[in-house]
Amino acid sequence: MKLIATGKALPELSVSAADLDLRLGCRSGDCLRKSGVHTRYFAGEQETQSALAARALHAALGNAGLGVGDIDLLIGACGIPEQALPGTACFIAHAAGLPAGLAVFDVNASCLSFLSALQVADSLLQSGAYRRIAIVAADLASRGLDWSNPEASLIFGDGAAAAIVERGEAGQGLRAFRLANYPEGRRHCEIRAGGTQCNPRRGAVASDFLFNMQGKAVFKLAAEKMPAFIDGLLAATPGGLDSIDWVLPHQASHLAMQHMAKKLGIGRERVIDIYASHGNQVAASLPTVLHEAVSSGRAQRGQRLLMLGTAAGLSLGGLVWDL
Amino acid sequence: MKLIATGKALPELSVSAADLDLRLGCRSGDCLRKSGVHTRYFAGEQETQSALAARALHAALGNAGLGVGDIDLLIGACGIPEQALPGTACFIAHAAGLPAGLAVFDVNASCLSFLSALQVADSLLQSGAYRRIAIVAADLASRGLDWSNPEASLIFGDGAAAAIVERGEAGQGLRAFRLANYPEGRRHCEIRAGGTQCNPRRGAVASDFLFNMQGKAVFKLAAEKMPAFIDGLLAATPGGLDSIDWVLPHQASHLAMQHMAKKLGIGRERVIDIYASHGNQVAASLPTVLHEAVSSGRAQRGQRLLMLGTAAGLSLGGLVWDL
Repeated sequence: MKLIATGKALPELSVSAADLDLRLGCRSGDCLRKSGVHTRYFAGEQETQSALAARALHAALGNAGLGVGDIDLLIGACGIPEQALPGTACFIAHAAGLPAGLAVFDVNASCLSFLSALQVADSLLQSGAYRRIAIVAADLASRGLDWSNPEASLIFGDGAAAAIVERGEAGQGLRAFRLANYPEGRRHCEIRAGGTQCNPRRGAVASDFLFNMQGKAVFKLAAEKMPAFIDGLLAATPGGLDSIDWVLPHQASHLAMQHMAKKLGIGRERVIDIYASHGNQVAASLPTVLHEAVSSGRAQRGQRLLMLGTAAGLSLGGLVWDL
Repeated sequence: MKLIATGKALPELSVSAADLDLRLGCRSGDCLRKSGVHTRYFAGEQETQSALAARALHAALGNAGLGVGDIDLLIGACGIPEQALPGTACFIAHAAGLPAGLAVFDVNASCLSFLSALQVADSLLQSGAYRRIAIVAADLASRGLDWSNPEASLIFGDGAAAAIVERGEAGQGLRAFRLANYPEGRRHCEIRAGGTQCNPRRGAVASDFLFNMQGKAVFKLAAEKMPAFIDGLLAATPGGLDSIDWVLPHQASHLAMQHMAKKLGIGRERVIDIYASHGNQVAASLPTVLHEAVSSGRAQRGQRLLMLGTAAGLSLGGLVWDL
């Protein structure tokens, strides 16, 4: 699988840590200290997740010199949907003006949706089912943050990013992939409402519609499982850690990223870190990091990327991609 | 891709058309006449979508003589999620007692989620990424039906079904696949709430959480697009329509299925029809039909299946599978 182009989009409202101090009545500096995020972006009242996704898709198509008629599959890879039915990819197809009759579906693995979608795309391209695939992730965390819970709100930002991929030449594509779910953590990060279990008919309260995170439990479970997970992923990678040019982590939190870099034993100069200027953008984080790595000229054709992250579920995921 | 086994599960409450006549204060025979469904099943208060999915998965594993440790990927293929975050596959993994560390993710294409997941599984098996994949679809339509709208409520039933697939031998697997989305129909079937666009914080009313369908608009758009869609699918199928042993339609409605059989020009004896005894089970329909085709001894190894359907979005999908 060959990366043709990437693109990203940010919503209209830029919100600084100082803005949040004021809004939440905190002491000056509190929100930055607690979150590590200088600036994040929030969608305005009139913005939609699918419109933001469409902007990112158009940016990627533009960077590739392609038009909306030049892809034959759209994979939506958002963490939270725009609505319960139909899937978000249908709304993205509409917002982006994609041609009628295009194949579209969604892949969901919470914050690792883009990573899972990359593996799916890699296989679909190898099998010849499609020729050129667009993967788009957009998340509007701001629509469901519980501001009474600092650890589950201050770190998040909205955003979207897209990647266009084609079947690669020899030597290009995924070299290793691993995804591991630990169901004991399924309620560590959750939005209880939005589906068949918790809704107004069965009884639901306002907080059921908000993102709930037990930060300590997430960190503990992820920290416990991550070392063996990374070992397994690198054992499946010819050349191991030394062969990795760039590490692209999910921008989960400053603590999670520090922990991951330490466990990897890799210098910070090889880690793409946009956390302070974007926050945790849920499923949009990984493709936004990929866009930053490529558009800044750091990640280049012929190099090897390690993408790595955690997701609500609780899941760990990682892949090694020769660009 | 080779089909190893299937399984299905139905929730506890069997609801006849006569029961619905009484419940809704209709004349005797009205609900059967309007829907064509004699019996459908509804989840009880305490049942969950993931527990029903787990029962279907265990049934499939049992039919295959396999245990929970014998699959290396679980794909959730539900139409509506159990909750907004995390994905339903995580809850199914827990309910089914799957081993910690398993790869799980969800594929969503509304009522065609199972069909899309089959294509994804086929490619992942071909590429060697996984050895044995379980695909599970469960939907509890009853949790979101608007009983004030007969055409959008009387036809639905709850259910779950699963399929276990492995890499096939030469001559086994998908011969053709087509998925086509028509965004103009994205609001013809929808549940507006449940995501970033319509929720209590932004303002939502009770009906936003219920399934809304503009039946005439769906039928019109599907009928307009279906003939060329089928022609394209069969043109990609060596041997064309004559080579098909069994047609497995999404059990959308009696009218939709009659229309599809007529457009195909295929005898009803080659169509697997469980609509009157199950209703439209959303994404669980297609795998339940597959289970019925196989468990009744009709569809056999060496034969060719045509799976075909429509989905909210509005999407059309079809595949040809040599068992």
